[in-house]
Amino acid sequence: MAIRVGIIGYGNLAKGVESEIRKNPDMELKGIFTRRDPSSVTIKTEGVPVYSSNDIPNMKDDFDVMIICGGSATDLPTQTKEYAKYFNVIDSFDTHAKIPEHFAAVDESAKGAGKIAVISVGWDPGMFSLTRLYANCILPEGNDYTFWGKGVSQGHSDAIRRIKGVKNAKQYTIPVESALEAVRSGSNPELTTRQKHTRECFVVAEEGADKALIEKTIKEMPNYFADYDTTVHFISEEEFERDHSRINHGGFVFRSGVTGFENENKHVIEYSLKLDSNPEFTASVLLAYARAAYRLQQKGESGCRTVFDIAPALLSPLSGDEIRAHLL
Amino acid sequence: MAIRVGIIGYGNLAKGVESEIRKNPDMELKGIFTRRDPSSVTIKTEGVPVYSSNDIPNMKDDFDVMIICGGSATDLPTQTKEYAKYFNVIDSFDTHAKIPEHFAAVDESAKGAGKIAVISVGWDPGMFSLTRLYANCILPEGNDYTFWGKGVSQGHSDAIRRIKGVKNAKQYTIPVESALEAVRSGSNPELTTRQKHTRECFVVAEEGADKALIEKTIKEMPNYFADYDTTVHFISEEEFERDHSRINHGGFVFRSGVTGFENENKHVIEYSLKLDSNPEFTASVLLAYARAAYRLQQKGESGCRTVFDIAPALLSPLSGDEIRAHLL
Repeated sequence: MAIRVGIIGYGNLAKGVESEIRKNPDMELKGIFTRRDPSSVTIKTEGVPVYSSNDIPNMKDDFDVMIICGGSATDLPTQTKEYAKYFNVIDSFDTHAKIPEHFAAVDESAKGAGKIAVISVGWDPGMFSLTRLYANCILPEGNDYTFWGKGVSQGHSDAIRRIKGVKNAKQYTIPVESALEAVRSGSNPELTTRQKHTRECFVVAEEGADKALIEKTIKEMPNYFADYDTTVHFISEEEFERDHSRINHGGFVFRSGVTGFENENKHVIEYSLKLDSNPEFTASVLLAYARAAYRLQQKGESGCRTVFDIAPALLSPLSGDEIRAHLL
Repeated sequence: MAIRVGIIGYGNLAKGVESEIRKNPDMELKGIFTRRDPSSVTIKTEGVPVYSSNDIPNMKDDFDVMIICGGSATDLPTQTKEYAKYFNVIDSFDTHAKIPEHFAAVDESAKGAGKIAVISVGWDPGMFSLTRLYANCILPEGNDYTFWGKGVSQGHSDAIRRIKGVKNAKQYTIPVESALEAVRSGSNPELTTRQKHTRECFVVAEEGADKALIEKTIKEMPNYFADYDTTVHFISEEEFERDHSRINHGGFVFRSGVTGFENENKHVIEYSLKLDSNPEFTASVLLAYARAAYRLQQKGESGCRTVFDIAPALLSPLSGDEIRAHLL
């Protein structure tokens, strides 16, 4: 019998789960929950019901895993611990500094209910974290480097849109090629914030807006832009729609370390992602961990987990014999 | 108390374990076992005894984990299943076709003894296998690509040395840059053996040897060279010693896949290694899995495992709280 999966929320990430579950024949999408009026929400999958999120607690026997697609700022801190009382749950909580607190709250709730919750799943946190952990265990003496991009930063785009006179904006984070090369060479460079990434902004200004002032406001914005070399392009609405509607992203994780009695041998581990669709890729990772969560709970385990706690084989629809024969 | 580690064998890989265990403060090297006369073997670590491999069965209470550093062709198929009767063991068995058989034999032996055995640990099989598994679970629709090099192939170097008139030889496997670029672009190319790698050979010929015949013999050697574009350089013994004594290696694993309702979005996952010392890096991986094997057995588990079966957190000397705070 297929694993019965539900989706909470219906934004970009949820739509990614909806499309990617079709590539996992051992799973079945059984329902989508929304805070809006369900009759106002049209989804792309025929025959799958849309429910009100008020009904979630009443449906605890109808789903094996819930994929919670809310935002990290306000949704997930309350949703994950609440829904772990009824279901195995997966989230993509990415506020790094608050992970310990979130973990503790979700762990208590999931243990109480005999469910498995996997938090902070995706690519960073997620696949990038796994790369860092494996690489740190293998090369205890070394340095970690993480670069993001080229890709769209939602937070930075939002920050620009809040400036007076800005109609629309998109910000791309771009790793500096010479910094990547320096890390790749094994030279273990010390890199400042400015040396690692540049920021490129495409802005649609309102008619009559003071473009020079907008550009200055962006470039001097503390935390978001002041520490970076930032380029601002003003473009038309048409150009914006045509060239900047994708949600691509990606990045690089490096560990550069040494071995040998005299630390005479250098090693560089590099992991990189080039993603046309950030939400669809993230959704794909969530689905693999949904399978693992279900299996762990079937084995009688409960509580909160992260990608660090889950044996890789649990993610695969294939048997142990098959993965040893074909992927080892 | 530190994890008490033993090494079986004293070749390049074992010497790597000897140097890298120093970077793992929670482990202690308690002894090295050799088939030679122990008094003839001088190791680099003061105060660590060298024992005869005949004594292994008598010392089952003195070691928590044995790292078996024999070769895959003849040593490991007998050693790992034998020593799993006495210790938790780790090996780097890399004969892909025989992994299922090796797994079954070692599993039976380790289960009988209540020990944990982890087989096929290293980078391929090992870290490359993990990358393939994770990437296949995330992108079910896609293609895998593995490239090796630039690096020394021991098997190919040995094959050249067996040719009449060859005094010494080293063979480098080199991935073809244009093939890497094609895969990296997400174009999912179909690549022949010849299109993926070239082979470069540095040969010291015996005096008066027929160099033209040696070159022809290399280039036409079935399985090893006939399917590749191969370059042969004849060099002096001095040049060989000076420029070709390192054991560097590396490689690339890619998964190139699609997401979206219409498979309209492309994604490329890339993992690469650049290693100055193949044996020291492999040894570093073995040590991380030695820690995991010990912990699993302490938890009451037994039997054979591969890298697929082991939760990443078990590899780290840090606590769950620490890795969540610093690496997630």
